[in-house]
Amino acid sequence: MAAAWDSSIAEELRMVEEEIRRSVDSEQRLLTEISMHVIGSGGKRVRPGVSVLSFRAVGGVEVSQVIGIAAAFELIHSATLIHDDINDGGEKRRGAVSAFRKYGVQRALVAGDFLFVKGFRAGGSFGPKVVEIIADACARMAESEMVQSDHVSDSSTSVDTYIEIIRGKTAKPIEASAKVGALLGGGSEEHIEALGLYGLNLGLAFQITDDVLDIVGNESVLGKPRGMDFRDGTPTLPLILAMNDGHDGRRISRLFGKKRKRPEEVGEALDLMADSWGLQAAREKAREFSSKAIDCLAPIPPSVYKNGLRSLARAVVEREM
Amino acid sequence: MAAAWDSSIAEELRMVEEEIRRSVDSEQRLLTEISMHVIGSGGKRVRPGVSVLSFRAVGGVEVSQVIGIAAAFELIHSATLIHDDINDGGEKRRGAVSAFRKYGVQRALVAGDFLFVKGFRAGGSFGPKVVEIIADACARMAESEMVQSDHVSDSSTSVDTYIEIIRGKTAKPIEASAKVGALLGGGSEEHIEALGLYGLNLGLAFQITDDVLDIVGNESVLGKPRGMDFRDGTPTLPLILAMNDGHDGRRISRLFGKKRKRPEEVGEALDLMADSWGLQAAREKAREFSSKAIDCLAPIPPSVYKNGLRSLARAVVEREM
Repeated sequence: MAAAWDSSIAEELRMVEEEIRRSVDSEQRLLTEISMHVIGSGGKRVRPGVSVLSFRAVGGVEVSQVIGIAAAFELIHSATLIHDDINDGGEKRRGAVSAFRKYGVQRALVAGDFLFVKGFRAGGSFGPKVVEIIADACARMAESEMVQSDHVSDSSTSVDTYIEIIRGKTAKPIEASAKVGALLGGGSEEHIEALGLYGLNLGLAFQITDDVLDIVGNESVLGKPRGMDFRDGTPTLPLILAMNDGHDGRRISRLFGKKRKRPEEVGEALDLMADSWGLQAAREKAREFSSKAIDCLAPIPPSVYKNGLRSLARAVVEREM
Repeated sequence: MAAAWDSSIAEELRMVEEEIRRSVDSEQRLLTEISMHVIGSGGKRVRPGVSVLSFRAVGGVEVSQVIGIAAAFELIHSATLIHDDINDGGEKRRGAVSAFRKYGVQRALVAGDFLFVKGFRAGGSFGPKVVEIIADACARMAESEMVQSDHVSDSSTSVDTYIEIIRGKTAKPIEASAKVGALLGGGSEEHIEALGLYGLNLGLAFQITDDVLDIVGNESVLGKPRGMDFRDGTPTLPLILAMNDGHDGRRISRLFGKKRKRPEEVGEALDLMADSWGLQAAREKAREFSSKAIDCLAPIPPSVYKNGLRSLARAVVEREM
C-alpha cells in the first residue's frame, strides 16, 4: 500500500495497537498467542485507520474516545479472518501459516469467538447506537457469507450477486468504521452520511482489488499463493467478467465449474484470466469505486485527515498486497 | 426437568421466544433456518429463565426491559452450542442431527457467528455495564474452552481444573444472566451479588448433572448417545472421581488416556463408571452446589419468583435430560 495515507494519525494508530494488545491479554496465554498470531502479522489497519481519520475529519478532538472503537473494528476483522481461513482451508495468511493450520481448528475457532467478544466489548462502551451499527455490519457479513456459499463454483454468478456479496463482506464493515468514527467525533448527520458512503465505496474498491491481486499479484508480496479464490470456487469480478468473454471465457468457465480443481487447471485459468479483458475491466471498476469514495468526501472541510482519506482511496487500488 | 420452576414467568418466556425469533429473522433464510434448528429444538431456557426470575425477584416491573437481555443470553448460548458441536464432532443435539452435520461446517460456523452478533446486539442496548458483564462471561467461556482443550484425554486432570473449566463454560454465563436480570430489575448491590452467586452455583450443579447424565442418562430422553464426553476425551467430575478409585479406576483411566477409543472401550468404561463410587459422589457434589445456590437466595424477599429460582435449583439436579 502507498505510504502516506496514515501519516497524520501515526500516534493514534500506535494507541490503537496498544489497545488491541490490552484487549487480547488473557490468562490463557494460547488465546493471546493465537490472537496476536493473526493481529500481529501486519494487516493494513484500514478499518481502524478509517475510524480515526473520520473522527478527526469531522473535528473530533478527544482522541481517547475513538481508540477503543478503532480497536474494536480490527478485533472483529481479525475474528472473521480466523473463521474464514477455517472455512476456506486457507493455508497461509499474510506470509505466515494460518491460525487453524498452526493451532488446530478447535482452538482457532475458539480464538475467533474470543476476538469477536473482545471487539464487541470494546465497541459496547459507546452505547446502543454504536452497538447497533457494528452489529448490523457483522450480521451483514454473516449474511453475505451465506450468499457466497450458495455460489461456490457457480459459473453463472452475476455481477450484481458479486457486488451484493462484497458489499456485505467487506464494504459494510468499512462503512461502519467510518460512520462510528464520525459519530464519535461529533460529526453532523450530513458528514456521518458522507463518510459512511466513502467507506462503502472504499470497501468495494478494496475487495475488487483484492480479487484482482489473487490473479496477478506477486506471491511473495501477497504473503499467500495466487489463485486461491479460483481454487475455492469463490466468484470474483475479474473472473465473472473473464468468463463472459469469448472462447477463453468458456474454457475458464468450464474449469471454474469443477468442484475439485487440479493445480494445473487453476494455473491454466489464472493465465487465461491474467490476459483477459475482464481483469482490466475489474481494475477499472475498482478505480471507479475509489473515485466515487473520494467524491463522497465533498461535504467534508479540508484538513490533513481528509487528505489521508483521499490518499487511502487511491492507495487501495494501487497496492500490490 | 421437573415442571413448575418457570410457571410464574410463562408469559415472559413466551415473549422471549418471540424476541429470539425476531432477532434471527434474516433475508438469508438459511441463516434463520440454521439458527432455529438449534434454538427451536427444545432447550431448557435456563439462562433466560434465570434472567427473568432474577429481574422479578428484586421487584422489576417493566418486563419489556428484561425480555431483550433474556433473549441475548439464549442467542449467545445457542451460538456456543453450534461451535461446540463443530469442535467436538457432536452428531446429535436435543434429539436432532447437529447443525454442522445437517448444514456443513462452513454454514454452521457462520450461523454461530451470526447468533453471537445478534446476542450482542440484543445485549448492547442496555449500556456499557451490561455489555461488560456479558462480554466477560463470554471471554471466560472461550478461556475455559482452551483449558479444556489442554486436558483432552488427560487422565491426571484434577478436580480443581475440572471446576475451573465448568465455572467458565457453564457457571459464568448463568451467573451473568442472573446479575444482569437483577441489575435491570433495579436490585440493590446486595441482591445483585446474591443472585449472581446463586447463578454461579446453579451453573456448577447444572454442568455436573449434565456430566452424570452423559454416563447414566436415558439416551432417548437425552436426545443424544451416552458416553460422548468419554469418547471425546473430556474430563468430567464423575470420571475423575471414578478414575481415582481402585482397580476399576485404573482400567477406566487407561481407556480414557487413549487418543482414539473404540466403541466397545467406551461401553466398558461407561459400565464401570455407572457402578462406581465416583458417580454417586458427583451426584452428591451437584446437590451440594444446588443447596448452596438456594442458600444464596437468603437476602432475597419471598415471592413466587424466588420460589421459582429455588425450584429451578432443585430441578437441575433431579432432571433426566
